[in-house]
Amino acid sequence: MKIAVDAMGGDNAPQVIVEGIEKARDEWTDLEFVLYGDETKIKKYLKNSDRISIVHTDEEILGTDEPVKAIRSKKNSSMVLAAKSVKAKEADAMLSLGNTGALLAAGIFIVGRIKQVERPALMPTLPVTNSALGVNVLDVGANAEAKPTYLQQWAVMGSIYARDVKQIKEPRIGLLNNGTEEDKGDTLHKEAFKLLSNTEGINFIGNVESNNILSGVADVIVTDGFTGNAALKATEGTATILLKEMKHALLNNGFFTKMGAAIVAPSLKGLRDMFDTSHAGGAVLLGLKSPVIKAHGAADSKTVFYTVKQIYDMLLNDTINKANTYFEQMNKKDEDK
Amino acid sequence: MKIAVDAMGGDNAPQVIVEGIEKARDEWTDLEFVLYGDETKIKKYLKNSDRISIVHTDEEILGTDEPVKAIRSKKNSSMVLAAKSVKAKEADAMLSLGNTGALLAAGIFIVGRIKQVERPALMPTLPVTNSALGVNVLDVGANAEAKPTYLQQWAVMGSIYARDVKQIKEPRIGLLNNGTEEDKGDTLHKEAFKLLSNTEGINFIGNVESNNILSGVADVIVTDGFTGNAALKATEGTATILLKEMKHALLNNGFFTKMGAAIVAPSLKGLRDMFDTSHAGGAVLLGLKSPVIKAHGAADSKTVFYTVKQIYDMLLNDTINKANTYFEQMNKKDEDK
Repeated sequence: MKIAVDAMGGDNAPQVIVEGIEKARDEWTDLEFVLYGDETKIKKYLKNSDRISIVHTDEEILGTDEPVKAIRSKKNSSMVLAAKSVKAKEADAMLSLGNTGALLAAGIFIVGRIKQVERPALMPTLPVTNSALGVNVLDVGANAEAKPTYLQQWAVMGSIYARDVKQIKEPRIGLLNNGTEEDKGDTLHKEAFKLLSNTEGINFIGNVESNNILSGVADVIVTDGFTGNAALKATEGTATILLKEMKHALLNNGFFTKMGAAIVAPSLKGLRDMFDTSHAGGAVLLGLKSPVIKAHGAADSKTVFYTVKQIYDMLLNDTINKANTYFEQMNKKDEDK
Repeated sequence: MKIAVDAMGGDNAPQVIVEGIEKARDEWTDLEFVLYGDETKIKKYLKNSDRISIVHTDEEILGTDEPVKAIRSKKNSSMVLAAKSVKAKEADAMLSLGNTGALLAAGIFIVGRIKQVERPALMPTLPVTNSALGVNVLDVGANAEAKPTYLQQWAVMGSIYARDVKQIKEPRIGLLNNGTEEDKGDTLHKEAFKLLSNTEGINFIGNVESNNILSGVADVIVTDGFTGNAALKATEGTATILLKEMKHALLNNGFFTKMGAAIVAPSLKGLRDMFDTSHAGGAVLLGLKSPVIKAHGAADSKTVFYTVKQIYDMLLNDTINKANTYFEQMNKKDEDK
């Protein structure tokens, strides 16, 4: 199994990427890696090139680049070369910490989507208070517009992913909506509710409201990309602001508060750890012919390591082909009717 | 000026309502109140009936009632009677802590909307880190579906409200979207962006992402009710969970942590206070012929007091007629063209 790695994306490239990949290489002996990027910079951090090869390129896509344009004009960028190697079946999967929009474009236009999936979806793992497994939410922004059938396909793929990678036997699939009753929502979500209720092979538990995303009421939450994007960013924004203000309150209120802060610090670190989902890896672009994973731009080497584990689990379980087979059987049943 | 009060809605009715109203009555001598609800229960808390009259009714709408049905079948409920008195111009505004959906229905079907406003919107005030004035977000759920013109009308009304009630000269109006660039979003938000860019009399600052709602980048954020609902609930859910887990971490990690927690408690209370928007009152149902305000079901008497202040400011400034006049002038201009 070979993983194509965009070694130049993210805030701390290529260092954290090389370190994470080396750790993963040492852990799983049946994995090989191809690192795309600046050879000199990569070699600066690479300690042992066992099962790790480098394809040199000077070009890279920046976080500020316009996604589709970047993919088309920067044909020799580390991201585009990695995607092309997956397309050419020289690699089985791809990992990048770079520009999310560009990776979406590379995934869709270069790697290509599964025939039966109308639109690929971006699926991160968010923390929940009652389980280390977190919750997978899709789509969080690969698509600005959605149809009910997209949500159905995402539910199926999310369910297969949760079974294969998170080892949940019957993943609870929720639909993000503006109320829990089944007649809630706009036309899109009402129709999606009906479709999901009649989808074979998934454990659909009904509507979920976004104040319950983090409370672990579902293993997978399906949403249109526009709403999912808003809910994800509101969650992240609120957590970031609260933790920042908490830190500020503890460190800027005189000596005694600071002393108290030092005492409670280990307990509050536990709180931070609860919200740390790095062990879940990165966000999957589901619906493509091969696993394409986006790890956070600020990811550390540990997250890179876990992202490789995530890809490894998807490859071992043949997660993508399972979705493919599911949709083929569904289509056949529809035709037989 | 007379305010019709649904004295039976909310978790702590009628006590907190009576207490808040009495405090407001003492503060603003040109205000009168009619309390709709159980006379015996109300009188138990009412100390002085100066400028406060009671209209007795046994019927009340519960939090669990189906909104539209409740409004139609419970014709003598405290909420419906209060709405009817506004409709009959016996009162100038209405306040309730009860069932949000039922209040929306009562507002739309009984009080009635301004002719030029296609759909009323629900607008709460959310806290921001850099100002006590907070940010007004609308619509957060009165409508599951939206058109670009709705968002335009909401922007105008939100702007007038922020000027009148929050005393901001040129309120910054943002459009909640999935990116800050002007070509972002689905068809609805792209068209809304164009409309808002060409709307006279508002200070449109462009797109805002939901991770910045609480950071104070705008004074008013306009959004369709489905996305607004998701963003609001994600914000509330994340804040609730984080504060709860923080408390848990501080109180359940042994003696020393508890001691430390006692030391930092005052500083953390400051953090809680920052997220307290009770001084902003309740959520306004904008687009109706009179102010209809929903205070939180768990509101205390202080919040009820500030909700009266909010209504008082809207009445003093003739906020609703300003919107009416604005739309009439716009229509006239369109006809003149």
